[in-house]
Amino acid sequence: MSGSQAPEPALSVQGDSTTSTGDEDEDAAHGTQHSHRMLSFSDALLSIIATVMILPVTHTEISPEQFDRSIQKLLATRIAVYLMTFLIVTVAWAAHTRLFQVVGKIDDTLALLNLACMMTITFLPYTFSLMMAFPEVPLGIFLFCVCVIAIGAVQIGRSAHRGLYRRHILHIVLRGPALCFLAAGFSLFFYPVSYLLMATVIFLPYASKAASWCRGRLMGPREPPAPSVEFFTYDLQEPLSKERVEAFSDGVYAIVATLLILDICEDNVPDAKVVEERFQGSLVAALSVYGPQFLAYFGSFATVGLLWFAHHSLFLHVRKATQSMGLLNTLSLAFVGGLPLAYQQTSAFARQPRDELESVRVSCAIIFFASIFQFAMWTAALLREAETLRPSARFGGQEHAFMCAKLALYPCASLLAFTLTCVLSRFSTAIFHSMQIAVPFAFLLLRLLVRLALALLRALRGLAAPAQDTVDPRAPLLPAPC
Amino acid sequence: MSGSQAPEPALSVQGDSTTSTGDEDEDAAHGTQHSHRMLSFSDALLSIIATVMILPVTHTEISPEQFDRSIQKLLATRIAVYLMTFLIVTVAWAAHTRLFQVVGKIDDTLALLNLACMMTITFLPYTFSLMMAFPEVPLGIFLFCVCVIAIGAVQIGRSAHRGLYRRHILHIVLRGPALCFLAAGFSLFFYPVSYLLMATVIFLPYASKAASWCRGRLMGPREPPAPSVEFFTYDLQEPLSKERVEAFSDGVYAIVATLLILDICEDNVPDAKVVEERFQGSLVAALSVYGPQFLAYFGSFATVGLLWFAHHSLFLHVRKATQSMGLLNTLSLAFVGGLPLAYQQTSAFARQPRDELESVRVSCAIIFFASIFQFAMWTAALLREAETLRPSARFGGQEHAFMCAKLALYPCASLLAFTLTCVLSRFSTAIFHSMQIAVPFAFLLLRLLVRLALALLRALRGLAAPAQDTVDPRAPLLPAPC
Repeated sequence: MSGSQAPEPALSVQGDSTTSTGDEDEDAAHGTQHSHRMLSFSDALLSIIATVMILPVTHTEISPEQFDRSIQKLLATRIAVYLMTFLIVTVAWAAHTRLFQVVGKIDDTLALLNLACMMTITFLPYTFSLMMAFPEVPLGIFLFCVCVIAIGAVQIGRSAHRGLYRRHILHIVLRGPALCFLAAGFSLFFYPVSYLLMATVIFLPYASKAASWCRGRLMGPREPPAPSVEFFTYDLQEPLSKERVEAFSDGVYAIVATLLILDICEDNVPDAKVVEERFQGSLVAALSVYGPQFLAYFGSFATVGLLWFAHHSLFLHVRKATQSMGLLNTLSLAFVGGLPLAYQQTSAFARQPRDELESVRVSCAIIFFASIFQFAMWTAALLREAETLRPSARFGGQEHAFMCAKLALYPCASLLAFTLTCVLSRFSTAIFHSMQIAVPFAFLLLRLLVRLALALLRALRGLAAPAQDTVDPRAPLLPAPC
Repeated sequence: MSGSQAPEPALSVQGDSTTSTGDEDEDAAHGTQHSHRMLSFSDALLSIIATVMILPVTHTEISPEQFDRSIQKLLATRIAVYLMTFLIVTVAWAAHTRLFQVVGKIDDTLALLNLACMMTITFLPYTFSLMMAFPEVPLGIFLFCVCVIAIGAVQIGRSAHRGLYRRHILHIVLRGPALCFLAAGFSLFFYPVSYLLMATVIFLPYASKAASWCRGRLMGPREPPAPSVEFFTYDLQEPLSKERVEAFSDGVYAIVATLLILDICEDNVPDAKVVEERFQGSLVAALSVYGPQFLAYFGSFATVGLLWFAHHSLFLHVRKATQSMGLLNTLSLAFVGGLPLAYQQTSAFARQPRDELESVRVSCAIIFFASIFQFAMWTAALLREAETLRPSARFGGQEHAFMCAKLALYPCASLLAFTLTCVLSRFSTAIFHSMQIAVPFAFLLLRLLVRLALALLRALRGLAAPAQDTVDPRAPLLPAPC
């Protein structure tokens, strides 16, 4: 009767997810599983929730005559909801990542608890919307706090099995819910304190990361703490899981790229009657009215796609993602999430030509910030290159100059477009669209261009010092660090 | 000067993606990379595009007094657009999977071509919307054909390097574009033929899969063809990549689960003026009006989450996904994509109590079909269990009865709810909501229940044959196959 023995959930700390098929069969027989697929599902869910709140922002109707203070306030409110949602979801994602660096295998109960946690997280954007609409009523804060406490409770439920890590897990996981419990209490009689406490919950991880990074820069690299078993997994200096950073970023890029077609499909199919009456039944003529929208759509998709491409190229050369790189990645992604706003701004050109200049400038600024934080991630990786980068991307490596050029392309192009719009303000739309068309070709030709530039540099150097023939191939090919 | 040597794109056929860090460093140095991350990004994009067209369906405003033929036609049109988009994107995804089973590593040019391919695919839903709005005007068909031809051209560009597989790739990849070229030609003078050709493009892969499966069932298992190198990758009987089936399904489940909160955030935040005037400033009273919507949201998220959980449990025990399983998975996902419709139907209860019964029935039917196709996938896997399943899930394995129960839970529950609404039509809403609440608990208690049932069965068998003490533990624990 051994076939009917109760299969007990077996949890074990395992970093790598590569096991042989025999092991997998064994795990499946015991009702446990490696958490790989559950983690990618959670990453997909979290990245979509983080980004989807940009839609109410882009759906705010702005017509020139009614662009008054109330619309401005509505727009600012919605942007604030988007940013707060993005930040809190990223914090939740980071906590989730840390928790599952300990939990190597899961059973059915943990999988269901994880779903409950996800359901609570999806409800957070609604609490923010409520808070922004009724800042004086404590209900929004109260619901938010209930959600955070529920997430914390679920996470404790997931980790309750493990006596060894309990203390550290409780410390990390309970910090947010405890602060929120306080905030919920204050919300009943003095709500500004609640907002302060909530801001602490959201910004504390970022502030502590930034502070420790600055301290590390100023005081020189600290001696890493002795790698005891207990502290290992919750060391704040420990790198994030590279796979999960990639999966979360992929989700954000994918949802931003596809949100655009939704607007196109809903708004830009002409009505049959209008086509009959106004365009004498010519569909082509009716669609040509939407020309700028289609152009903006393709330009926007190309921008998101190429930013993903730069991110992908960067992480191809990254071995480990440090905390500071994670922070910069989050900031970059927050601006990438703002790109549908840039699309909506540029596609509104045809309707309101006077706001053209501002729209183009907002778009350029969003693209610039999204790409400059990617470049900052690259420089942050270079600062600790022995640990974070593969050999070929370090100073003097084969791919170093090429990577620099790839990541510098969008900041330079958007800065150039912004400056040009200041000088030639009448041609701002043309400048913006030609930038969007030119950059993909620049990416295609980049390898050629960088090689030409390097050859030119070497030729110049060869002219300057013709005797020095045998150059060490590992030496930096470019004189400047970037 | 060896540092400046031109890195050539090196493509190689490699099935497994597990390489040591040394290999990865080597690849990065040569500008090539394993395509793992690009594939998951493509999967995310494609699954979102496949599902996102359900949004226009759910956004169709239906009020009881204007529920006339024009609204019905609009709704039918939008559902048709959703289904066509879902099917064509799945076909494109399957072609993409097949292509990248050959292309093991990619370089920058291939990554950029892949982005161009994705951009063209995102435009397909728009061409469908146009076709449905103007079925007589050839422009929609024409644009669709141009898109398919462009996708084909990009895919040929990606595979052009590989002389060995060129003929087979051309055969598979060019079939769609060639048919579309014909369709584009016909669209100019006789458009019904174009629609026929397009339907062939969409349904041909499914029809051939289904036909070969039926033939295999009727004629007995065929002798597999000799595994020559050339034919290996394009054999139609070859299993799909399990990882990509999982990634695509994860994307669909994730986007369906999160689409719901978007509607909640946009529609269910009360206006400050309304709260002041109608509810005397009480936010709680104002929100209690939305009670049914919140209930429907949580119920809907739970349904999507638990369907994902069942899918996850199933694929945990699957070793290889066959073509027929892929087809059944697609059908299941198409109904999962319809779940936001069920949400919109059930959340509309409060507004129009007379349509309540129909709404509940539609919801039950959608859930039933989504889950019954999962169950069919399980039976399809059982038919070839030696090849597709891990030992513990086969007949007589430890987990077999448990898996059956897990996958049968939703079909049984939704069927039960449907039957109950026919008998007790007045309590249909209560029945539906209690089903949504009961099923998650059933999942939690399932392991216990199955074990109790098995113990009961064994006790009964022990009473019937008390002498037969030593039962073979590998023998089937349940008398019936399921």
